[in-house]
Amino acid sequence: MATLIAPFSTDPIADAQALRKACEGWGTDEKGIIEVIGHRNEAQLKLIREAYTEQYGEDLIRRFEKELSGDLEKAVYRWMHEPLDRQAILANVAVKKGDYKVIVELSCLPCSEEFLGIRRAYQARYKHSLEEDVASHSTGEIRRLLLLLVSAYRHETKETDARLAEAEAEILHKAIKDKEFSHDEVLRIVGTRSKAQLVATFFRYQDVYGDSIIKRLEANKDKEFVRLLETTIECIWSTKEYLESVVREALSKKGRNEDVLTRVIVTRAERDLREIKELYYKRNSVTLEDAIGKEIRGDYKTFLLTLLGAEGY
Amino acid sequence: MATLIAPFSTDPIADAQALRKACEGWGTDEKGIIEVIGHRNEAQLKLIREAYTEQYGEDLIRRFEKELSGDLEKAVYRWMHEPLDRQAILANVAVKKGDYKVIVELSCLPCSEEFLGIRRAYQARYKHSLEEDVASHSTGEIRRLLLLLVSAYRHETKETDARLAEAEAEILHKAIKDKEFSHDEVLRIVGTRSKAQLVATFFRYQDVYGDSIIKRLEANKDKEFVRLLETTIECIWSTKEYLESVVREALSKKGRNEDVLTRVIVTRAERDLREIKELYYKRNSVTLEDAIGKEIRGDYKTFLLTLLGAEGY
Repeated sequence: MATLIAPFSTDPIADAQALRKACEGWGTDEKGIIEVIGHRNEAQLKLIREAYTEQYGEDLIRRFEKELSGDLEKAVYRWMHEPLDRQAILANVAVKKGDYKVIVELSCLPCSEEFLGIRRAYQARYKHSLEEDVASHSTGEIRRLLLLLVSAYRHETKETDARLAEAEAEILHKAIKDKEFSHDEVLRIVGTRSKAQLVATFFRYQDVYGDSIIKRLEANKDKEFVRLLETTIECIWSTKEYLESVVREALSKKGRNEDVLTRVIVTRAERDLREIKELYYKRNSVTLEDAIGKEIRGDYKTFLLTLLGAEGY
Repeated sequence: MATLIAPFSTDPIADAQALRKACEGWGTDEKGIIEVIGHRNEAQLKLIREAYTEQYGEDLIRRFEKELSGDLEKAVYRWMHEPLDRQAILANVAVKKGDYKVIVELSCLPCSEEFLGIRRAYQARYKHSLEEDVASHSTGEIRRLLLLLVSAYRHETKETDARLAEAEAEILHKAIKDKEFSHDEVLRIVGTRSKAQLVATFFRYQDVYGDSIIKRLEANKDKEFVRLLETTIECIWSTKEYLESVVREALSKKGRNEDVLTRVIVTRAERDLREIKELYYKRNSVTLEDAIGKEIRGDYKTFLLTLLGAEGY
């Protein structure tokens, strides 16, 4: 479930006026901006952007870029884009940075049709396909894995084939035992099977070989390819647990990363951030709001807490 | 341009009745069937199928399967399906037969959105994704090429980057010179670049290295992978010339293949079969109608000639 708190009906013209006011004059009223956009859903934000352009002849997102700065600017920039565009932007940043884990995440979390929409948005925005950019920014076994993931259009089904799960669990087990992590057959299975079938295969693996496939991969986490394979499996097998672990790492002293925190909160606030929050509390015995309240400062903190549905915090 | 001759407006109910009559009683009136369906376009055939089901409570395609046989049955079966379904059926047959050349053709000829429609139709029909079936029916370098091709969602653009074309022509040239045909970089370029960019690269190759890339590959045609790479390039670079060569081979004494002939005629009759016919005549100094008239017999011949717009032949 979502954490975003948005009124049932809003007035896009009044919102555009309030945002204009918050941007005008000396200094920017960041709190005024957050008060509006932190309480509007995807459809409402779209109407506000349209109303703003119509009223003031400028692009609201561009204006925010001028008015804001730092982590708040980045978070608002991501939040204000429609979800498919946002994901395309995140993918492009990740490609340029060589942040392969994010590419795995962006390609494995959405359903087939949504991911296709992201690929379309990417092409419209960058005049290249996502796969050609990924391919020209990576090499070797990592490229082979990423190319399969960003080109996948998996069959969306709940049906699974138990015999196939057994056979492919065995293939995975043999490859991991022989440390042939990037074996063609591993790539084939992970890159083409439906998510439901893969989950059946991972469970079968666990039943037959005692440990989860994730645990078996852990021992070889020094290899980047293995870490990416692990991320692939986690994204497909246990989305929310994966996202909780990403947030936890991003809030840790050692792994502190505002970009990552922004990415998860902005992309999940209208989806399943409530469950991720619950998992976070279970795992860390501290609420996500408390952790953010302690680790993050300023208007950026206010914005994240607003999206988390916890502004009175 | 199309070769199919279909009246501007038709009566689907009258057509359904005529087809019912052709199927009833002793023996089947093949000519009566061809007379109707050989003169109806995609949209009209769809209406006929619907009208037939409504009137007679049975599926027209199933009925044809019972009434017809041999090459005519196969050709009618393919013709009667909507194009995306038809391509999905052809892809599935090719996967099961290991007919990789057809998989290359089916994935490289359509534009991105059309090919995506084929992938959707495939999933709806076979409850698997095309890529997972291709992957589990192939191995090694061939699998790597095919997987890229059947997963591609190329950027549809006419813009090209001359410097990129030059750089990638050089990469292709070096790989071919070193006989590293399945080098990762070759697969990356051929599997992910837009068609327009690839055409620019192939022309650049020809300008810089004197021969066309196709000619350079010819010398290594004993390798199946090289033949498939060549097919990929031909499909992208010169669709109609490629299809003419397929028809020519299918009509030759040595390579005679009714399935192939059916595939090209049925899939292109509403598209560009006229240009393919013209190329055929230029290349062979005999019309395609004459060649078919000489090499093929019976109602199957009549059906093909009807789709070729040459029934009075």
